[in-house]
Amino acid sequence: MNTLHIIKIGGNVIDSEQDLAAFLTDLSKIQGPKLLVHGGGKLATALSKKLEIPSQLVDGRRITDAETLKVVTMVYAGWINKHIVAQLQGLGTNAIGLSGADGHCIRSTRRQAQQIDYGFVGDVSAEGVNTTFFASLLQQGIVPVLSAITCDAQGQLLNTNADTLASVLAIALSKHYTVSLVYCFEKKGVLRDKDNNDSVITSIDPAEYITLKAQGIVNEGMLPKLDNAFAARQQGAGSVVLAHAADLLSILQLQTHAGTHITL
Amino acid sequence: MNTLHIIKIGGNVIDSEQDLAAFLTDLSKIQGPKLLVHGGGKLATALSKKLEIPSQLVDGRRITDAETLKVVTMVYAGWINKHIVAQLQGLGTNAIGLSGADGHCIRSTRRQAQQIDYGFVGDVSAEGVNTTFFASLLQQGIVPVLSAITCDAQGQLLNTNADTLASVLAIALSKHYTVSLVYCFEKKGVLRDKDNNDSVITSIDPAEYITLKAQGIVNEGMLPKLDNAFAARQQGAGSVVLAHAADLLSILQLQTHAGTHITL
Repeated sequence: MNTLHIIKIGGNVIDSEQDLAAFLTDLSKIQGPKLLVHGGGKLATALSKKLEIPSQLVDGRRITDAETLKVVTMVYAGWINKHIVAQLQGLGTNAIGLSGADGHCIRSTRRQAQQIDYGFVGDVSAEGVNTTFFASLLQQGIVPVLSAITCDAQGQLLNTNADTLASVLAIALSKHYTVSLVYCFEKKGVLRDKDNNDSVITSIDPAEYITLKAQGIVNEGMLPKLDNAFAARQQGAGSVVLAHAADLLSILQLQTHAGTHITL
Repeated sequence: MNTLHIIKIGGNVIDSEQDLAAFLTDLSKIQGPKLLVHGGGKLATALSKKLEIPSQLVDGRRITDAETLKVVTMVYAGWINKHIVAQLQGLGTNAIGLSGADGHCIRSTRRQAQQIDYGFVGDVSAEGVNTTFFASLLQQGIVPVLSAITCDAQGQLLNTNADTLASVLAIALSKHYTVSLVYCFEKKGVLRDKDNNDSVITSIDPAEYITLKAQGIVNEGMLPKLDNAFAARQQGAGSVVLAHAADLLSILQLQTHAGTHITL
């Protein structure tokens, strides 16, 4: 099977024009089928603040009321998505920007309110991925660029976790491709000492993960990211790495061992 | 050749949730290949105002500085586009939202500053339409929903006139389809007396158009719209009608003679 590179970038890359341009230049050099998932960054929070919409986070996840849904759809599926796609076009990479509503490529389910009502938030699973649609684009040499706005079967737009979206895409598309998934984030990998950027844990297997959690070495925001990374690796992705965006090209092209590799 | 329905809606439909829902329900009932082009509406102006970005119009066209480009990209290609696509998905119509950057489906050229510098504004022509890409989507039964944000060969996002975009799409796609183009706007058609909504001119040919201009019966905002309508009809569209959105279904399904028909 062909290798498909799925790359997820977060706010740290998106918030810096210079870092984003450097990353997109690197991305455009990766040969073969590839797919980008992007998160949000600070613009949505800044815009909500300017519009005087209160912004709430619980466990690192945004509470999405109707006004916030409008803002994140504008910012993620609008400005950030089109800004990335246009830059890729300028680099000669034929990209297409997508929300989950487009071509109904990602069908999500609205999260039911339990202790916390997250509002217009959607959960995704590999079953909701329209693999035929993605395979058709990839075969045409088109690079899908996904924002984490999806919709449910009733046509309700929903805010989705971008890490989870990258994971379920990796799982679903591993039926058609050997998937290489890279989560790019602000660190060089999972750190043993959060204050020492050189203390990267080079690989983590499920047993080690349990230990790291028990020791409190991985916690808070890293937990859902690692849960998503393990889910992807255990359910079909051929390789899963967490690394700094600046190391992407050397990892993929030079096989440099940078970042944290998820093993089984 | 198959008939392709190209429908353009403007702000009057978009600004009313109720009118938009009714229009999209009608659109979803139209059989066969179809494509929607949407304009902006009041939200971009309202958002610019809230963000204290001065909004300028010259000859009915917005001056697009860098901040305004961000706002229109967020509003047109983000919220409005995805809101429409999600609603169509809820109605069982598989739509895909596109800016011109996506799949580089519309390549525009930045307008050079002459007497007036329009800023980040793009001009489009039929040559810039990626007909292969649109034909591929239409053959899969997918309905393209176009916002009038495009990009040039260098990857610069540009604000584009939605009426012109609909016209050049009609011209380019008339090589593959018998194109029926309907401009939906706030009137029942081109009016002989602007204060009498029943004074619809049922058809206009090029000679009549010159007369109507000379008499001042058509002027201002109607001139570019009619220029675009005539360009489409003269360069390949099989039929071009200007009508109220509420009359769309009866025109297309019942062949009711509503609106103003452009003839040669």
